[in-house]
Amino acid sequence: MPRPDLEQVLLGHGAGGRLTAELLDSVVLPALAGEELRGPLEDAADIPGEDGLVITTDGFVVSPLFFPGGDIGSLAVHGTVNDLAMRGAEPIALTVAVVIEEGMELDELRAVLTSLGTAARAAGLPVLAGDTKVVQRGHADKVFITTTGLGRRIPGLRPSAAGARDGDTVLLSGPIGAHGTAVLSTREQLGFTADIVSDSRPLHRLVRALAPLGEAVHTLRDPTRGGLAAALNEIALDSGVQITLDETALPIPGQVAAACGILGLDPLHVANEGCLVAFVPHERAQDALRLMRSRPEGVSAVSIGQVNGTRPGRVVIRTAIGGERTVDMPLGEQLPRIC
Amino acid sequence: MPRPDLEQVLLGHGAGGRLTAELLDSVVLPALAGEELRGPLEDAADIPGEDGLVITTDGFVVSPLFFPGGDIGSLAVHGTVNDLAMRGAEPIALTVAVVIEEGMELDELRAVLTSLGTAARAAGLPVLAGDTKVVQRGHADKVFITTTGLGRRIPGLRPSAAGARDGDTVLLSGPIGAHGTAVLSTREQLGFTADIVSDSRPLHRLVRALAPLGEAVHTLRDPTRGGLAAALNEIALDSGVQITLDETALPIPGQVAAACGILGLDPLHVANEGCLVAFVPHERAQDALRLMRSRPEGVSAVSIGQVNGTRPGRVVIRTAIGGERTVDMPLGEQLPRIC
Repeated sequence: MPRPDLEQVLLGHGAGGRLTAELLDSVVLPALAGEELRGPLEDAADIPGEDGLVITTDGFVVSPLFFPGGDIGSLAVHGTVNDLAMRGAEPIALTVAVVIEEGMELDELRAVLTSLGTAARAAGLPVLAGDTKVVQRGHADKVFITTTGLGRRIPGLRPSAAGARDGDTVLLSGPIGAHGTAVLSTREQLGFTADIVSDSRPLHRLVRALAPLGEAVHTLRDPTRGGLAAALNEIALDSGVQITLDETALPIPGQVAAACGILGLDPLHVANEGCLVAFVPHERAQDALRLMRSRPEGVSAVSIGQVNGTRPGRVVIRTAIGGERTVDMPLGEQLPRIC
Repeated sequence: MPRPDLEQVLLGHGAGGRLTAELLDSVVLPALAGEELRGPLEDAADIPGEDGLVITTDGFVVSPLFFPGGDIGSLAVHGTVNDLAMRGAEPIALTVAVVIEEGMELDELRAVLTSLGTAARAAGLPVLAGDTKVVQRGHADKVFITTTGLGRRIPGLRPSAAGARDGDTVLLSGPIGAHGTAVLSTREQLGFTADIVSDSRPLHRLVRALAPLGEAVHTLRDPTRGGLAAALNEIALDSGVQITLDETALPIPGQVAAACGILGLDPLHVANEGCLVAFVPHERAQDALRLMRSRPEGVSAVSIGQVNGTRPGRVVIRTAIGGERTVDMPLGEQLPRIC
């Protein structure tokens, strides 16, 4: 007998882990079917016939709408700007579509959209087009926002999720785990919300700072849904390489670690919205760190591991006591509506 | 004492009429604030620095998901293709973001996305990027889809909502009222659903057929939310002209008129998803009609009125018995979730 829940969409299908990948592979990609969506799923897509232009789209359903360090409006800008940046592109235009629940307070809607507009201006990005729909009470949850970003590649940069190579050093631009724990602890009304602030911010200027390295920037990815574990597993698969992390090098703030302990989460699974991983050849790693640290958003950049080993598609972590364990793709059911 | 409902979003705020315009003017545009969103609100926006490229975004929340003549998937393609076409542009890329309600049947999701993929291929349009989010049961209504379209202007065409001029003839490419009545009668489970079929279809090839007229194509608009009344009122305002319609020329199918009678709707307020109005100088009207009728989607094209008169911003209709009445902007509360 079939398990009925296998025939329905689960909350975890949206959380960026294995379930999301399954939904994409079994339903979404076969239906949309274009060859353009095959191959490595990058953060943003090249536009055929329009050299240097890339495009990306993202829906935002974070709950609650406001959390320490941000809100759904600023997040909708940062998430899309960062998807463009991960392809080595500067943002040039943004569109915004909102679905609003009947009865939402206009003041709350105004606050969200004002934050969105402010974030877009801070990123130097015009909002060119928009759309507004309203559905009945109980058919949405206040407001969902979809942003689409158009970007132009910075000359020389060609980062790709399939670009990581043996011998690369894995760099991380800042501490991990803050965004997801900030949202979740606010949602669950845990007491430590004031201590953990989302890292939500635009990363295109950090990527621009890396431009002098040119094609040595093999791979860029922002570890959002599914966290660092999902981002690195996708890169390991798409590039056909093994990634080995050094546990002692992972920048996990003490408050994040403590909150994850209370919430029963692995910090490697928690979404980030303001840091990136960069894969560069070992001999360029120091240059890359220096360039990243020249920007406020990369001031805490560190090396967290390397590309080596004989198990393509795997991510392993060398523990503090000298052991080794696999970092699996998260299943993705623990962290719904984090972005 | 303030009326509390004035401080909340109403269902009619999403219906494309006066309430939508108020929400845009009082909340959305001030918040997003960029000059790019000022001036006439076109169906698609020029992208600064990228000559000839236009972009548009649209959220689709139609209920029910399936209706005679289409579904939310095909509609999400046609609506966005048509917004590009109304700026005289060919579609070159599409992105798709879906928000899914937990518990939606995978088969239904697959059917919607397959229809979307089929419609995109039929329009010759690659789906370049996508995103999938899932929210808890009761926090969405099965699935909402946001599509963003990128287009390239057909050389020579520069239609604008602000381009209508005194002496223009107003052409309509086909009968009106079918989409909205098909959706509404399906939703309300009225008996005549089988008789009325949505006109949902892509219009970019019809626009391409008009290319020989070049800049004589002053204005193109597809009368979607808010119907022909909203589209023409927007053009009258943005162009600063009076539009006079000939009631006897309006192509309203008998079944649509009958359904509108039962539903208490004005056919001029009902959304269409497969026809357009074109404003061309009087002396080019016959050429335009001939070109439109060369395409299946324009075979029933007719002239419905002209630009003349001394009341800029007004739309009037000459009735069959020789009288005249104003065609107001619909308020927009009668037809929620029609697209």
